[in-house]
Amino acid sequence: MTIGIVGAGQLGRMLVLAGRPLGLQFRLLDPARDACAGELAGQIVAAYDDPGALGQLAAQCEVITFEFENVPATAVDRLSHDRPVYPSPRALEIAQDRFNEKTLFGRLGIATPRFAKIDSEAELRTAVAGMGLPAVLKTRRLGYDGKGQFVLREEADIEKACWTLGDADLILESFVPFEREVSLVATRRANGETVFYPLTENTHRNGILHLSIPRAGDPLQAEAEHCVGRLLEELDYVGTLAFEFFVHEGQLLANEIAPRVHNSGHWTIEGAVTSQFENHLRAILDWPLGCTDPLCPAAMVNFVGELPPAEAVLAIPGARLHDYGKAPRTGRKVGHATLLASSEAELATRLSDLLALVPETGRGA
Amino acid sequence: MTIGIVGAGQLGRMLVLAGRPLGLQFRLLDPARDACAGELAGQIVAAYDDPGALGQLAAQCEVITFEFENVPATAVDRLSHDRPVYPSPRALEIAQDRFNEKTLFGRLGIATPRFAKIDSEAELRTAVAGMGLPAVLKTRRLGYDGKGQFVLREEADIEKACWTLGDADLILESFVPFEREVSLVATRRANGETVFYPLTENTHRNGILHLSIPRAGDPLQAEAEHCVGRLLEELDYVGTLAFEFFVHEGQLLANEIAPRVHNSGHWTIEGAVTSQFENHLRAILDWPLGCTDPLCPAAMVNFVGELPPAEAVLAIPGARLHDYGKAPRTGRKVGHATLLASSEAELATRLSDLLALVPETGRGA
Repeated sequence: MTIGIVGAGQLGRMLVLAGRPLGLQFRLLDPARDACAGELAGQIVAAYDDPGALGQLAAQCEVITFEFENVPATAVDRLSHDRPVYPSPRALEIAQDRFNEKTLFGRLGIATPRFAKIDSEAELRTAVAGMGLPAVLKTRRLGYDGKGQFVLREEADIEKACWTLGDADLILESFVPFEREVSLVATRRANGETVFYPLTENTHRNGILHLSIPRAGDPLQAEAEHCVGRLLEELDYVGTLAFEFFVHEGQLLANEIAPRVHNSGHWTIEGAVTSQFENHLRAILDWPLGCTDPLCPAAMVNFVGELPPAEAVLAIPGARLHDYGKAPRTGRKVGHATLLASSEAELATRLSDLLALVPETGRGA
Repeated sequence: MTIGIVGAGQLGRMLVLAGRPLGLQFRLLDPARDACAGELAGQIVAAYDDPGALGQLAAQCEVITFEFENVPATAVDRLSHDRPVYPSPRALEIAQDRFNEKTLFGRLGIATPRFAKIDSEAELRTAVAGMGLPAVLKTRRLGYDGKGQFVLREEADIEKACWTLGDADLILESFVPFEREVSLVATRRANGETVFYPLTENTHRNGILHLSIPRAGDPLQAEAEHCVGRLLEELDYVGTLAFEFFVHEGQLLANEIAPRVHNSGHWTIEGAVTSQFENHLRAILDWPLGCTDPLCPAAMVNFVGELPPAEAVLAIPGARLHDYGKAPRTGRKVGHATLLASSEAELATRLSDLLALVPETGRGA
């Protein structure tokens, strides 16, 4: 059985590593000649919308998935005529547009921050007048890792924001002074079988995920599963999905979804009975899903810009290193480490040792 | 950093899968064109003692290891002139000869079944007279998975045994009516740092490992660690090693060692904080060793001859499948499954479901 993956970055790499023990073969499509999953499986080096490359991928694979949500919809459409593509083009389309996504949340009764569609500076001024400041102006499409966002703190920022982001295809969202950011990673199979991982608490730094800690038994788990379950059902979703929430005054406010395996689920590789990667593969193959129970207290720290020395990471008891094999570059996710521990107290000690290896600023900033 | 592995079977495959997240590259040497690790890393297809191939392997790697103990000593010697080879040629040499191995155990004060060197039928008759029957006649070298063994139950079997195994380079061992077979997997680094996994209880079927269950807190753990620690120190061992014991009248009797990662340690991939494979790699790179604590009750079942359907295995909660990508063949290890559970009782239920998928006889017999 050969799985096609559109994209060959670290998520593709971890999908391949999860699939090999299941006896699966992989074929990747990515325009970057040095894409980091390319050393683990055959890669077609071509643009995502190259018709010849898409035909080749479909011809060589039985099922196709993608590892990032900014794949051109036309490419996914094209692939889906030849082969099953999971998650579906519709799920991808919803997730590609922040306004459509939040509109759907609203329709499903999932609470969100206030938001408004912005297609001109005039609309922005009207929306700001209604919503008040601070607020966050975002591009509707193609944003990630904090890119394509502008925080408006005062009237004077409006012009600057339009200058930076343009003045069309935007969304204005009320700024949420959240207590916590959490995400729920879930996997659904075509027959409706759905599994949920524990809510994970996330800390960002410069707009990029820095630290994730699963919180088994979080009081918001049931409510989060309820929201995510409704969305998965609505989209007839197949595969793994991450749903990010703000926690504000103890309540969940939906932020966004990623229709794919997600950085906040990397701890599941070692910390859960079955990883988000393996469950994604099981789902798209219509195989039974694996148990998502956490095995012990765990935490994940991203390495951004460059990796600390492997020996320093591995000297921390319970540390497992993931080097994505990418060249160092400012702002680039080049690896992560998962920490396992036998108690929350032990985890806290180990985590402080690990965080000491990650520079506060510098190449990683 | 590129690691050379002599042998490209399933142990090599699992070493590669463990090393990729650490950012490691691999190069394999195996004469079998369809060796199952070959699809995961570059393989040199050549005889183990092919001088050109050995030179090529050494030229392409910084450190070299092996995945099975029947590598020709000349090959390892040759490699060790060019590159560090771990475990050392001496450790390999000891493990390749059952008589030298048991003699060393005796010298280190590690209890063994009674044994005698046999180089003629006359010596065999003398040894049988002294030791009594039943006893087990084994080839000193190149035995594995129960091959090269003959159980003598009565005088009349002597001739048959010599006919089957020859009458030189043999060892006669008293037959131990053991209560249990257990193994201790350990990893040692050059600086002496040593870690031990929990004792694992093993069940064989037709001479081939069938089932392994780690027994955290086994009363024999300390004694086993004492024996294995002494051996590792004596050999100045670097890497992972498995030491198999019989338990007879509650006491450990040394059976044999495998100077490599071992089938009875496969459960550590999911069931321990760090797997035997990752620890082997850390050891040969002189990196800090990882924590060997078990994460939960676990068991491993081998698939011999052919695999059960993936969906049937994965329908069992807590099951993780390892398909080695090998063609089915009678008596061949083609995969395994590890079961994780939250309690011993839950493990027992899941294990009985898993064992029901493994035919008692048939291709796997």
